[in-house]
Amino acid sequence: MVNSVSEREIVVGKKSISNYLIDIAVVFQEGVSAIVIKGYGRYISKAVDLYNALTDKMRDAVKLDSVAIGSEPVAGRLKSYIAIKVTRKL
Amino acid sequence: MVNSVSEREIVVGKKSISNYLIDIAVVFQEGVSAIVIKGYGRYISKAVDLYNALTDKMRDAVKLDSVAIGSEPVAGRLKSYIAIKVTRKL
Repeated sequence: MVNSVSEREIVVGKKSISNYLIDIAVVFQEGVSAIVIKGYGRYISKAVDLYNALTDKMRDAVKLDSVAIGSEPVAGRLKSYIAIKVTRKL
Repeated sequence: MVNSVSEREIVVGKKSISNYLIDIAVVFQEGVSAIVIKGYGRYISKAVDLYNALTDKMRDAVKLDSVAIGSEPVAGRLKSYIAIKVTRKL
């Protein structure tokens, strides 16, 4: 990509944790400095699993910035979500 | 209870959200000012659901203090967890 943005959102769904780890590696490689891992409903647990896998693999290269929880309307009804923001250390 | 403690942990498991809401109401009634809602593995999503149900019911009476995520050993293997700390406003 030509334009680098400062933050990118990754919404966790049915793909494997490994797949999301690759996605994140690619995004960081593009020069994006912050990623928000977002999970809705039952994918909230998987979002935390992904965060743990990420810190396990990348260790000191990533840093937890913030964790937000709440609910927002998805397809007309309120769904619980988690938004985990991680930043890349240079 | 005679002694009031400042913080109590509620570990989310198989009981219904309503059951945990009652548990939390009882704990606050005992004079405890902070509750940590903890969920492991697939119960992380339910912990966030419980937090949302709590804020929906108690509105301004509760306040989100912090959200921690990570992994810790449970029965010999690492499990993802979430710890949601809420405080009661007087």
